[in-house]
Amino acid sequence: MAPTEAGQHPRMALALAAHDASGRVTPIRISRRDTGDDDVAIQVLYCGVCHSDLHTVKNEWRTAIYPVVPGHEIAGLVTEVGKNVTKFNVGDKVGVGCMANTCQSCESCEEGLENYCSKITFTYNSRDRDGTVTSGGYSDMVVVNQSFVIRFPDGMPLDKGAPLLCAGITVYTPMKYHGLNEPGKHIGIIGLGGLGHVAVKFAKAFGMRVTVISTSPEKREEAVEKLGADAFVVSSDANQMRAAKGTMHGIINTASASMSMYPYLALLKPQGKMILLGLPEKPLQISAFSLVSGGKTMAGSCMGSIRDTQEMMDFAAKHELTADIEVVGAEDVNDALERLAKGDVRYRFVIDVGNTLVAA
Amino acid sequence: MAPTEAGQHPRMALALAAHDASGRVTPIRISRRDTGDDDVAIQVLYCGVCHSDLHTVKNEWRTAIYPVVPGHEIAGLVTEVGKNVTKFNVGDKVGVGCMANTCQSCESCEEGLENYCSKITFTYNSRDRDGTVTSGGYSDMVVVNQSFVIRFPDGMPLDKGAPLLCAGITVYTPMKYHGLNEPGKHIGIIGLGGLGHVAVKFAKAFGMRVTVISTSPEKREEAVEKLGADAFVVSSDANQMRAAKGTMHGIINTASASMSMYPYLALLKPQGKMILLGLPEKPLQISAFSLVSGGKTMAGSCMGSIRDTQEMMDFAAKHELTADIEVVGAEDVNDALERLAKGDVRYRFVIDVGNTLVAA
Repeated sequence: MAPTEAGQHPRMALALAAHDASGRVTPIRISRRDTGDDDVAIQVLYCGVCHSDLHTVKNEWRTAIYPVVPGHEIAGLVTEVGKNVTKFNVGDKVGVGCMANTCQSCESCEEGLENYCSKITFTYNSRDRDGTVTSGGYSDMVVVNQSFVIRFPDGMPLDKGAPLLCAGITVYTPMKYHGLNEPGKHIGIIGLGGLGHVAVKFAKAFGMRVTVISTSPEKREEAVEKLGADAFVVSSDANQMRAAKGTMHGIINTASASMSMYPYLALLKPQGKMILLGLPEKPLQISAFSLVSGGKTMAGSCMGSIRDTQEMMDFAAKHELTADIEVVGAEDVNDALERLAKGDVRYRFVIDVGNTLVAA
Repeated sequence: MAPTEAGQHPRMALALAAHDASGRVTPIRISRRDTGDDDVAIQVLYCGVCHSDLHTVKNEWRTAIYPVVPGHEIAGLVTEVGKNVTKFNVGDKVGVGCMANTCQSCESCEEGLENYCSKITFTYNSRDRDGTVTSGGYSDMVVVNQSFVIRFPDGMPLDKGAPLLCAGITVYTPMKYHGLNEPGKHIGIIGLGGLGHVAVKFAKAFGMRVTVISTSPEKREEAVEKLGADAFVVSSDANQMRAAKGTMHGIINTASASMSMYPYLALLKPQGKMILLGLPEKPLQISAFSLVSGGKTMAGSCMGSIRDTQEMMDFAAKHELTADIEVVGAEDVNDALERLAKGDVRYRFVIDVGNTLVAA
């Protein structure tokens, strides 16, 4: 028989959980483990609402282990540390992103790329080391191994900083590893949502020229005036796409829709790189010629390492870079999930867990 | 009216040309330009027979400008140099690969990546700077701008070295630019033909672990015993493919056939790279998940720069690395093209132009 949370974990916590694929969450009491020797207990104050949360609560990836307590953009305060914990003290402002643990011994882990560990424990809806299922940050507290806790640098607000722990690192990592973080280079960002809007901000902070590529002409003003993009291309406008042809060193593609890659690959310079972050259900159709003739790259990227997440947070703090958020109370999370499904948010909902998730 | 070779070029040369899509070549007299100030005139002694030659003479890429004189793996001796030529002297052993010229002023050219110049002049079947159509190395002489001539290092034989000018640089370039040239790394080579067999040799010279992945079980002995591969996987054998899963840092894919990428991408470690060199006619089908979940890359690559070609030739000479060839006379080129179409060559035909292409 699989270990159960209640059987192993003595500590009770409040949470919002999905119990079925309806897409709704309701308050629930869950158990959390005691703070182990290497653990940090965290009072959750804010938690971002990522599109993954929606996919998971609706079981769109067929992986849900109900009840699901979502949330992997967690920000709060350390309330207790285990005896081996050296990196954190009670009262520290900290965060937790997509990972709660990994094997810490495989090649990926040893290379500091533990986000690609095959035995990764995700922050929620995932088997933990002890066999129990993890619960995320739609909850008043979490207990996490210190190696997977991120320090919030001075000046980084907990609410606007929380989404960087998933959306931020997801765009920062491929920009770093594919050389798309160099001043003067021209980068395209496909899609202006939770990921896209922080991608624009990171690219500008790196000193790059940024073009937002979107299906929605009405996003131009927002992209250029508010987020600071240098240019805006409507992807359905053939003239605009033609004018941008062969001008970009890289493209961060945050779209989850199935799309023909051909017109987007044409925007790249020779040796240009298209980074895929979304997971369209249908296979992508790609002509080999589009990649071979210009020596172009199409690469996927998934989350980022803990080391890179800390580096990203420090970089963001230095550049006063945060997510644009709409704060919601625990009682409004279902509305937020519905609006997120319709793309009706600029650009990230963040749950004010600390003030609103309280026992009835 | 477009300039004609005969109208502009006073010098006559012997050549083998395709006149239609039959796939056959016949002897012809062509004209070559006089040796310009920046030009090198070369007596062709050997010319490799690349699969591109076959595609072009049969007009399979719909680009043929008949009569087509193929050949872009050219090796020979300098017979004359223009007054600005500083890099070469009469009698030097030299080669010419896929490019005969580029604009030499665009961003790609200035970055030393002139193989991606949009105004590239290919060595044959391509508009030259003066508007005439280029003729390749199935000919007793060529005249080429010195910037596109490669020096044969001491000890590099003209016959076995000729194929490196296309097959060699085509595999060397992506190995260099994608970090697939580091000792100890594990590389897969899909396809054991003209490109694949030199890819194995370069990978071994770099000190890598090499696995050949092939549809043909009968190639195992050749791959392991003769070429020095460390392992051999039959791609249709699910057990062998499963055993190799997640073990490779990169794959050089030389196959031109349309294939599902999924089982091959699964062979890669996290952040592994699949390099496409072939041009299947049908679009590739790729699940975004195959790339995103492991942060994997699929990149195309096409030829290589002149600087890299020289570097590759020098590296090959140092490691006594040459192509495995079958030398044929000019009278047997049609047989060779037929056998090439059937994959019946280990691994490259090279025409003995110097001794056999003579006026009737």
